[in-house]
Amino acid sequence: MNRQLKFLLEADKLKTVERQTHLADASRRENSAEHSWHFALALLLFAEYAREENLDSLKILQMAVLHDLVEIDAGDTFVYDQNAQNSRRAREENAANRLFGLLPDDQNQKFRAIWEEFEAKQTPEARFASAIDRFSPVLQNFVTQGKAWRKHGVSVEQVEKVVGTELENAPELANFLRLLVETAGEKGFLKR
Amino acid sequence: MNRQLKFLLEADKLKTVERQTHLADASRRENSAEHSWHFALALLLFAEYAREENLDSLKILQMAVLHDLVEIDAGDTFVYDQNAQNSRRAREENAANRLFGLLPDDQNQKFRAIWEEFEAKQTPEARFASAIDRFSPVLQNFVTQGKAWRKHGVSVEQVEKVVGTELENAPELANFLRLLVETAGEKGFLKR
Repeated sequence: MNRQLKFLLEADKLKTVERQTHLADASRRENSAEHSWHFALALLLFAEYAREENLDSLKILQMAVLHDLVEIDAGDTFVYDQNAQNSRRAREENAANRLFGLLPDDQNQKFRAIWEEFEAKQTPEARFASAIDRFSPVLQNFVTQGKAWRKHGVSVEQVEKVVGTELENAPELANFLRLLVETAGEKGFLKR
Repeated sequence: MNRQLKFLLEADKLKTVERQTHLADASRRENSAEHSWHFALALLLFAEYAREENLDSLKILQMAVLHDLVEIDAGDTFVYDQNAQNSRRAREENAANRLFGLLPDDQNQKFRAIWEEFEAKQTPEARFASAIDRFSPVLQNFVTQGKAWRKHGVSVEQVEKVVGTELENAPELANFLRLLVETAGEKGFLKR
């Protein structure tokens, strides 16, 4: 139990990891812990839009809970920052070794496997979860008039690329985002 | 989908609902969204300590995701504030009517039922989830040297009462908390 308590307290640090995305009310940047909760809620909410069928709902929620823990050490990597994306995997591997390594061996293996499955995007559950993980940031950026997009000079083309690849596993949500991205371009929230 | 999007954006407000408990590093009070995530993680972590067997793990995680949504309207109710606790149920009922009412009818019924089940504490899943919901605040209060406890003049007796009732469904965790509460009394984090 000591190892589990240490892990739980260490995990508390995810509440201090800042993402680029702002809250929907634009009051501040969101942190990775509250994002993880909102992501889990979106997975419950949008289950019907998964392209593939008979998904394991428990696995999907477990992925949501565990997917960003590595950011405690590796930080949040902005999806449109290609340099940071290139080093992401190595940074997150080191973080996973340390963080999941705090756990008893059986839980280390179990939690690590769920995180690895999410990262690899090779199972229907991981593909759907990855799609939804991309959804909320676009929505939140749109309702904050592109606050993070404008700060980083993100273009319509860049967001369309992410929507066109990651969101293919939730086609109706992808179609909705395409309209949103088009509008964001017209309104100047995204570069043309 | 419009109703679901409206719900998801409304749910974002849970990130601005402050709890009395501070982060483990004592840097600020935690909000109900990041607490909900940490709670879900604790449920994954401590599953083996449930008194009852054959729990539905999916139901438990769904409870974690949905359990605090009503606080968007009703605010967080401090567990040791008896006056606020007396009015909590009515405030949260109204909140549930409005918030889950944003959803399509089938999801309104489904999400509402999960929240009601958690609140009623009549199923093994709800009893275990309620136990774990009490665990992290005690741990976080302890590691912040009783920051919220001292502010509100909480006593050893008050915390022991919560541990003795709510935590009965995770006996080993209850035993650990009893030691923590005793130590907190000795160190002056809690009133004697």
